[in-house]
Amino acid sequence: MAQNTVENVTKSPVTLLGLGAMGTALARAWLAAGHPLTVWNRSVARAEALAAEGAVVAATAAEAVAAGRLVVVCLLDDASVEEALAGADLAGRDLVNLVTSTPGQARARAAWAGARGARYLDGGIMAVPPMIGVPEAGAYVFYSGSAELFEEHREALAAPAAVRYVGADAGHAALHDVALLSAMYGMFAGVAHAFALVRGEAVKPGDLAPLLGGWLTAMAGSVERTAAQLESGDYTTGVVSNLAMQVAGKETLLRTAEEQRVSVELLSPFFRLMEHRLALGSGAEDVTGVVDLLRR
Amino acid sequence: MAQNTVENVTKSPVTLLGLGAMGTALARAWLAAGHPLTVWNRSVARAEALAAEGAVVAATAAEAVAAGRLVVVCLLDDASVEEALAGADLAGRDLVNLVTSTPGQARARAAWAGARGARYLDGGIMAVPPMIGVPEAGAYVFYSGSAELFEEHREALAAPAAVRYVGADAGHAALHDVALLSAMYGMFAGVAHAFALVRGEAVKPGDLAPLLGGWLTAMAGSVERTAAQLESGDYTTGVVSNLAMQVAGKETLLRTAEEQRVSVELLSPFFRLMEHRLALGSGAEDVTGVVDLLRR
Repeated sequence: MAQNTVENVTKSPVTLLGLGAMGTALARAWLAAGHPLTVWNRSVARAEALAAEGAVVAATAAEAVAAGRLVVVCLLDDASVEEALAGADLAGRDLVNLVTSTPGQARARAAWAGARGARYLDGGIMAVPPMIGVPEAGAYVFYSGSAELFEEHREALAAPAAVRYVGADAGHAALHDVALLSAMYGMFAGVAHAFALVRGEAVKPGDLAPLLGGWLTAMAGSVERTAAQLESGDYTTGVVSNLAMQVAGKETLLRTAEEQRVSVELLSPFFRLMEHRLALGSGAEDVTGVVDLLRR
Repeated sequence: MAQNTVENVTKSPVTLLGLGAMGTALARAWLAAGHPLTVWNRSVARAEALAAEGAVVAATAAEAVAAGRLVVVCLLDDASVEEALAGADLAGRDLVNLVTSTPGQARARAAWAGARGARYLDGGIMAVPPMIGVPEAGAYVFYSGSAELFEEHREALAAPAAVRYVGADAGHAALHDVALLSAMYGMFAGVAHAFALVRGEAVKPGDLAPLLGGWLTAMAGSVERTAAQLESGDYTTGVVSNLAMQVAGKETLLRTAEEQRVSVELLSPFFRLMEHRLALGSGAEDVTGVVDLLRR
């Protein structure tokens, strides 16, 4: 019986500003989890659709902010946060900003919120809207900023997707978000090159895909070695194939691209940095030294 | 009892030319699996070390080739294959070429072997030497060329690492090998950018690594969608985040790199192609159209 009483506990109220695709998905997840929800959106049509599902629609952002302590913002960009909240009283509020930001924007917004009497938590959503409220989709949100805010509202924050708190620096959720997305685009570039190589050959993309996916998954494990090398500063520890061998080996990759009439523009910048690092006398190292060459 | 009799079955003989780090690892795997092994290496010292472990050392490559039907070559490069085999009689031999090659080099070598009366199989090793003979390391070798050769020698070929036959075109093992390695370098570029972003911040590389590895593993699954789109020619099917949204979203990645003083040279070529494709009116598509822009 005890387990069932949780159904009867009143869930904490949530205010949500912004009902684009992501905001709407978040709203539905909170409603489904039983949180009383107040919503506001610039254009009222999207809000009205949610009213039918149990949300309270506020006429203004200020009214929505007044409805409860936890205020979640999911607007277009950082500028629209300031614009939407211009007339709202943030004193005593807990502001959770899910707007895509740079670390610098997040830190500035945290200071802005602090100056208005609000606690601040910044979030970076590692998901697209269809993954929200679907635990098995593996979505999660990076949070950074006020640890107290995070702990007090943990249950509400965890309703739409899993949560990962990455520290008190309000910029670090955005930093993690951008780091992962940036790495993903590197991988996408490599994948595009790989598929371009087999075009026109009797190799179906669908036959290459599981091999490619399996290989990238196996190689993704190498980030642990890279991290250990960066932490120790010794890039020769645990080297599987050293930089000298890799620089020599890339020639086959470049010649193959030429044979297959595929541009090497997506691979050559990394190869250039490998060569640069090798020229510094780092032939026995892993490719990790490329990281050092990227910092200005 | 029946299972144990396999131990008493005579294993097929193997001739191996080339005892660099990879050749030596292969030799040990064949000896460990009970295959009679004849080896040849340009410098005899490496061969003598294997003699103590049970290998027969041939004085010349021609003598090694004469010792048995299955001849595996693991030399430095394609030119050294021709050089080493110049005086050998290849008639009736089954030549397995594990030298790193382009697809074009592999096809030319297959024709060269055929003109000398040998059947030909080309291999691309997806492993480094320490993974050879260690089944749990997940190493495997792509093979393409003569299916008959592959089937007849399957047991011997599978002793050092798992095997994946990818078709009769002798160039396709190299093509698969290069496609996977190329994609890996793209991923490495993204990973280097990600680690560069967090340098100087209170984010330890070791804390970022599992998040990065998990994210890349999750995103590696998208190769299946990309493949399906390439096969259908419809790049709008199953789109999670369309090109218009991704082109807009990359601005936060670029601005973050600027804030963190990280060069965007590893990411900008892919972003340029995304913008190019968007300018062609493909905003509702996935990023798959970048593949088309890479083919000349």
